[in-house]
Amino acid sequence: MNDLSDYRKSYDKSELLESNIPEDPINLFNRWFHEVEDHGGDSEVNAMTLSTIGLDGFPRARVVLLKKFSEEGFIFYTNYNSEKGKAILENDKVCLSFFWHTMERQVIIKGVATKTSEMISDNYFDSRPDGSKLGAIASNQSEVVSSREVLETTLLKLEKEFSNTPISRPEYWGGFIVSPSEVEFWQGRPNRLHDRIRYIFQNDQSWKIDRLAP
Amino acid sequence: MNDLSDYRKSYDKSELLESNIPEDPINLFNRWFHEVEDHGGDSEVNAMTLSTIGLDGFPRARVVLLKKFSEEGFIFYTNYNSEKGKAILENDKVCLSFFWHTMERQVIIKGVATKTSEMISDNYFDSRPDGSKLGAIASNQSEVVSSREVLETTLLKLEKEFSNTPISRPEYWGGFIVSPSEVEFWQGRPNRLHDRIRYIFQNDQSWKIDRLAP
Repeated sequence: MNDLSDYRKSYDKSELLESNIPEDPINLFNRWFHEVEDHGGDSEVNAMTLSTIGLDGFPRARVVLLKKFSEEGFIFYTNYNSEKGKAILENDKVCLSFFWHTMERQVIIKGVATKTSEMISDNYFDSRPDGSKLGAIASNQSEVVSSREVLETTLLKLEKEFSNTPISRPEYWGGFIVSPSEVEFWQGRPNRLHDRIRYIFQNDQSWKIDRLAP
Repeated sequence: MNDLSDYRKSYDKSELLESNIPEDPINLFNRWFHEVEDHGGDSEVNAMTLSTIGLDGFPRARVVLLKKFSEEGFIFYTNYNSEKGKAILENDKVCLSFFWHTMERQVIIKGVATKTSEMISDNYFDSRPDGSKLGAIASNQSEVVSSREVLETTLLKLEKEFSNTPISRPEYWGGFIVSPSEVEFWQGRPNRLHDRIRYIFQNDQSWKIDRLAP
């Protein structure tokens, strides 16, 4: 039995006040992202948790890498036949969350995921190193595999096969873009009095801003 | 528009092989937890992402602190009236996930959450610093609040009120214990050939172990 009762710390790195936030959550996300990148010391600032609802009815989370963001949404790539790919194609409701612990910040995004265009997926796939391209082709993502050796043998075979051939994107691999309808920003503060600011997208295309109790 | 296409790194810190794992995922979790704590340099090794299914039908994730783990399950505490408290009381299916990026490890736990006994919640509440106790009482967690000043004023008032009085646990605040039915361990490896080992709890009370394609 492991008792972690006294594992806590005080959060006092920054603050998040209504007087200093933009009208649009993408602008605030952009500001926070670059502040963490420049000052936060987090090694993978674009690592985010993707939460989906699985075919078994359970929520499920795993880390994926954010590859692009803009007013249109947040893009990541995966095998569409993977566990998460299948989950999203069955239920497009997702949550993206960032925990930048060095700056005591969280961002939690609620939205709907749709496949990116084939062109966007092709362009990104083409930008990857060959090792990553072949890794994507070698692996029936999330399927049971009898041993690690099977994966390594498959990869070696593919490396030979493609040694003089350009590697093109398999049709079962590509991007999802998450269009946000709600974005919460959380800044840790002392005594549990954290700042929580929530943006909700409204019918008139503007964002409603509220402070939530921590 | 922010293009993060080339934000990637090679994962080569460790490996996870069938030849070196226990029969029980709690033992492996315990081993990983203490390895990260001793060597990983993560500042909050007990920070985990709790994913739930909300009343709006969307999955939702946020970071909470793991406060105890044992063969029986994983314990954390919250306001039962918070957004996450209400979500769990309506749908007890949850996912707990850990991302220990310094050691390139993830653990993903699927399970059902139930309230801990009042005694367990009381004992933990009593162990907290007064500031955290009053913070829990001062805040109608996840409700809209008109300003930060309202929270601070409430806290000041409570500090006076309780300056000579022991602070007891409010009945709307307490623990949940997550009983795991499936646990996946993910160790980053080069070329996307990550190690993924999944434990599934079976009717005969044993754990089935499989390797998954990365």
